[in-house]
Amino acid sequence: MPDTLKLAEYLLTRLHQLGVRSIHGVPGDFNLKLLDHVEPAGIHWVGNANELNAGYAADGYSRIKGIGALVTTFGVGELSAINAIAGAYAERAPVVHIVGTPPRSTQDARLRVHHTFGDGEYTRFAQMHAHVTVAQASLWDTQSAPEQIDTVLTQCVLHSRPVYIQVPLDLVDAPVDAGRLTWKPLSLDMTAPEATTPSQDLALSVVLQKIKTAKQPMILVDGETRALRIVDDVQNIVQTTNWPTFVTNFSKGLVDETPSNIHGIYRGSYDPKAKAFVDSCDLVLCFGPHFTTTNSAQSSAIPPKAATISFTDNEIQIGEQTYRDIPGQSAVSRLRKELSTLDLEPHSDYHSENNTISLASLSSTETITQAKMWRAISGFLRPGDIVMGETGTASYGIQELRLASHSRALAAVTWLSIGYMLPAAQGAALAQRELVASEGYNGLSQARTILFIGDGSFQMTVQELGTIIREDLDVIVFLLNNDGYTIERVIHGLYQKYNDVARWRYLEAPSFLGADAGVFTARVKTWGDLQNVFAAEEFTNGKGLRMVEIMLDREDVLEGPLMDLLLVEKKAATQVNGKA
Amino acid sequence: MPDTLKLAEYLLTRLHQLGVRSIHGVPGDFNLKLLDHVEPAGIHWVGNANELNAGYAADGYSRIKGIGALVTTFGVGELSAINAIAGAYAERAPVVHIVGTPPRSTQDARLRVHHTFGDGEYTRFAQMHAHVTVAQASLWDTQSAPEQIDTVLTQCVLHSRPVYIQVPLDLVDAPVDAGRLTWKPLSLDMTAPEATTPSQDLALSVVLQKIKTAKQPMILVDGETRALRIVDDVQNIVQTTNWPTFVTNFSKGLVDETPSNIHGIYRGSYDPKAKAFVDSCDLVLCFGPHFTTTNSAQSSAIPPKAATISFTDNEIQIGEQTYRDIPGQSAVSRLRKELSTLDLEPHSDYHSENNTISLASLSSTETITQAKMWRAISGFLRPGDIVMGETGTASYGIQELRLASHSRALAAVTWLSIGYMLPAAQGAALAQRELVASEGYNGLSQARTILFIGDGSFQMTVQELGTIIREDLDVIVFLLNNDGYTIERVIHGLYQKYNDVARWRYLEAPSFLGADAGVFTARVKTWGDLQNVFAAEEFTNGKGLRMVEIMLDREDVLEGPLMDLLLVEKKAATQVNGKA
Repeated sequence: MPDTLKLAEYLLTRLHQLGVRSIHGVPGDFNLKLLDHVEPAGIHWVGNANELNAGYAADGYSRIKGIGALVTTFGVGELSAINAIAGAYAERAPVVHIVGTPPRSTQDARLRVHHTFGDGEYTRFAQMHAHVTVAQASLWDTQSAPEQIDTVLTQCVLHSRPVYIQVPLDLVDAPVDAGRLTWKPLSLDMTAPEATTPSQDLALSVVLQKIKTAKQPMILVDGETRALRIVDDVQNIVQTTNWPTFVTNFSKGLVDETPSNIHGIYRGSYDPKAKAFVDSCDLVLCFGPHFTTTNSAQSSAIPPKAATISFTDNEIQIGEQTYRDIPGQSAVSRLRKELSTLDLEPHSDYHSENNTISLASLSSTETITQAKMWRAISGFLRPGDIVMGETGTASYGIQELRLASHSRALAAVTWLSIGYMLPAAQGAALAQRELVASEGYNGLSQARTILFIGDGSFQMTVQELGTIIREDLDVIVFLLNNDGYTIERVIHGLYQKYNDVARWRYLEAPSFLGADAGVFTARVKTWGDLQNVFAAEEFTNGKGLRMVEIMLDREDVLEGPLMDLLLVEKKAATQVNGKA
Repeated sequence: MPDTLKLAEYLLTRLHQLGVRSIHGVPGDFNLKLLDHVEPAGIHWVGNANELNAGYAADGYSRIKGIGALVTTFGVGELSAINAIAGAYAERAPVVHIVGTPPRSTQDARLRVHHTFGDGEYTRFAQMHAHVTVAQASLWDTQSAPEQIDTVLTQCVLHSRPVYIQVPLDLVDAPVDAGRLTWKPLSLDMTAPEATTPSQDLALSVVLQKIKTAKQPMILVDGETRALRIVDDVQNIVQTTNWPTFVTNFSKGLVDETPSNIHGIYRGSYDPKAKAFVDSCDLVLCFGPHFTTTNSAQSSAIPPKAATISFTDNEIQIGEQTYRDIPGQSAVSRLRKELSTLDLEPHSDYHSENNTISLASLSSTETITQAKMWRAISGFLRPGDIVMGETGTASYGIQELRLASHSRALAAVTWLSIGYMLPAAQGAALAQRELVASEGYNGLSQARTILFIGDGSFQMTVQELGTIIREDLDVIVFLLNNDGYTIERVIHGLYQKYNDVARWRYLEAPSFLGADAGVFTARVKTWGDLQNVFAAEEFTNGKGLRMVEIMLDREDVLEGPLMDLLLVEKKAATQVNGKA
């Protein structure tokens, strides 16, 4: 390692150390010189069509690889991406947002340049980002920059939340001390798992005591398990205990769904049998809770507090008692080890139905409805699949899927920004390919990313289908064409025009966006159509993009919350308009 | 007028009073009930494909109609649009950003709902908007709401800058007092033109004295003339004085370019002859100055201060002396009246070349280059055209056009957010159609919106071509396909991959996005191809969308700043890479 290197090289070396192998973004005059250093640092540059999409893609990438990054330009670029950064904050995706800013001389002189308001004020956009990132650095001198970078990246990893770094154009090539790269390596595992404190010892002893005496214990794995970087330990605990285990929208796929003690997503009051069981448990080990209303069946899936022990990023919560300053990684790692030496008492069991349907059993002339569709698609899934369900009916749908092992699922959790999932699929598929290529994907030598998305959402960020094509990613897109925003229709305005969207010819998208003539596309209306698609070798075992448009009725929604909403809206519409 | 009406009706009535006849936006669960009231208020709802695009469209609409509005939903929607709002601030577009927020009960209880960070904090996004809007209102009670709405809308009109209004879902249908609608009408003309103050009297007397004694006067019309709402008065002054008049990127089209005393855009040091003239003038009347570097040829087109009298939103600047609290509208209106009674002395004249080219004179087999293209296209332009040139080579190009009367031009000025211009064209074309329909478009019974846009920019916001189709707007799109970000290539990274974009099949866009089979599309490479397009009746006199892809070399840029940059980059590339 040389004594000094360029600031951009330092930053990119750090990202590389953390596992970043692709950076998303859009070029702009204040970041071009920074981009010169990306590929030489061994990092692939993905130019997205716009910055919001780049932010979404970096988010999707980060959820699979543990960290992601995007580069935008001052003002126009960074503000276009800011909603994606906010989403990464809300759902704990560790995304590094790097912004190329005007040279320090320009800022010092308060020049009235483009991408400003012409008032000499240059700090406005950083202030806006402070609301949606967990740490910020405005790099300004070569002495401080390395430590500032390290501090911010450490916060990104520890909190699994986005951070913000401004790099002035004239600082890109400035030499900085390389020393820290050697004496302070960074990695995604920053917590010393063995570190103990009296507080942690105390809390863990209480936890173990409750475990030893529990008669009807269970486990609830929520999605911040990913953010806490405790997925492997939790998987181990779920296996070791063999206790009944439920997941959430947010965590689906984080633990292997195939064993019989895994009972899928806990739907609270929408699943009275499961709720009765959960409410009667005397111990709920809850990992990475994230109890927003949309991730907890309107709070009905929050387990009773008295019986619950929650492991969060920095606390253990036992009933009403909070034990602070106990990093989740350390605590859960210790818990796993302790559990492996315990002889656990017999526990009450729970049984859930496997409600998958064989697609072959469905009448080939019958029209596709979501009531059966999701349960019929499970048979198509394979180990290693990343399955993504965009906010809308698709996100409710993928909750029904029975995933194969080593799968991941990304669904609507809290931010629910429609348009997110298509660029996120591009980022996730790229991260998946990198993991497969580096033999870091559970021994699998190939894998697919499968996106389910509604027509309205698809329109938001359609450009990134072009990036999927350009990057030749193995992505299957199921476009649910229900002629507008069905999710909004069932909430309000069932027959209102404002819930319509422009009618595109969706299957022309691959050709328009640059795909080869042979790209697989199909429109399906019946189970027979879908059977034919799944039987097509170039679809099921093909490479690159494949796209299927599923024609659905405007009011086709699943039983449960959406159907309940729909019935209310239909009734209201009848009363107001005399419409049926 | 009833004594009370619903809050949403009050807000929409106010917007209608101000001339808003279309609102752009995207539905979301927190704004759906608000949207119920849009069409009943006599306002057309334009559902855009995403919120950034809606913001851009509302901006484009506002620049033509004098005010625009968009509706988004809390968090995800409003943040997606925030870059468009920032651009409206930078370039003084009066856009009302209305955000549907969660019910007050939800906010009061700090519920962990979707579109939040799950931390009970609901004011974050409003704080972010305070950086990019000139006034904000978080409506919270029925007593204050009407006055708050009026105050914010007044600020929007007075400053010609965006404002921000939060409407909680449960307040939409709440009754508010209707009284203010009657006793305080709002309009776009809020300044009493006749209001005088001693300060204004003094300043105007100095101005008039300088006008009377000037031997070599001139006028520089800049783009804030639109924001100050003094276009008609300035047009009158330009005609009355017959003084040599220059414009800027920002103001092009605001004054009629056809008289011989109008000399187009003042390019400062890029036009030595003009600069010699300007520098020797003993009086420069400057209306609505906006001297960012990108709107003033890197500041070289700022006229000498000693000779300059500037009329801004609230000041008259005479040399080094600033006379404050003089609204531009009032001052310029008085100046116009005074000038109409003066016998002006003879003044020095200035002569500029008409450098347009007849397209017919160009060899039909010769490849199209921008060096001639813009000058050859002028002949195609008609009275009433709105001509738009997206940031990039297109924006430099349209500076070369000779506009017909009653035209408008929108070019890159200060914000320079690529992707802006296509949605802005949708908004502008809609505003144009409304003006034509209401016989408020200079007596013209039809008009066109003509967009010039590069391939990289087109990709950013391509969705809105679908909205242009859906709304059946009369828009001609010239897509300049130069295989990537040529504007970035000439700045830095001439041969770098990061300046490439995905290669789309651009002419498939209309079909993909829902156009009828008969939509006019053409790809042109030679002058002959372009001659054929202009000769095609369905193109030149057609309706709806028409799209022409112009194939250009990657390094095809105009003489001037871009060519200067290109030559520097070519030289640097030769030195570094040995490439020619």
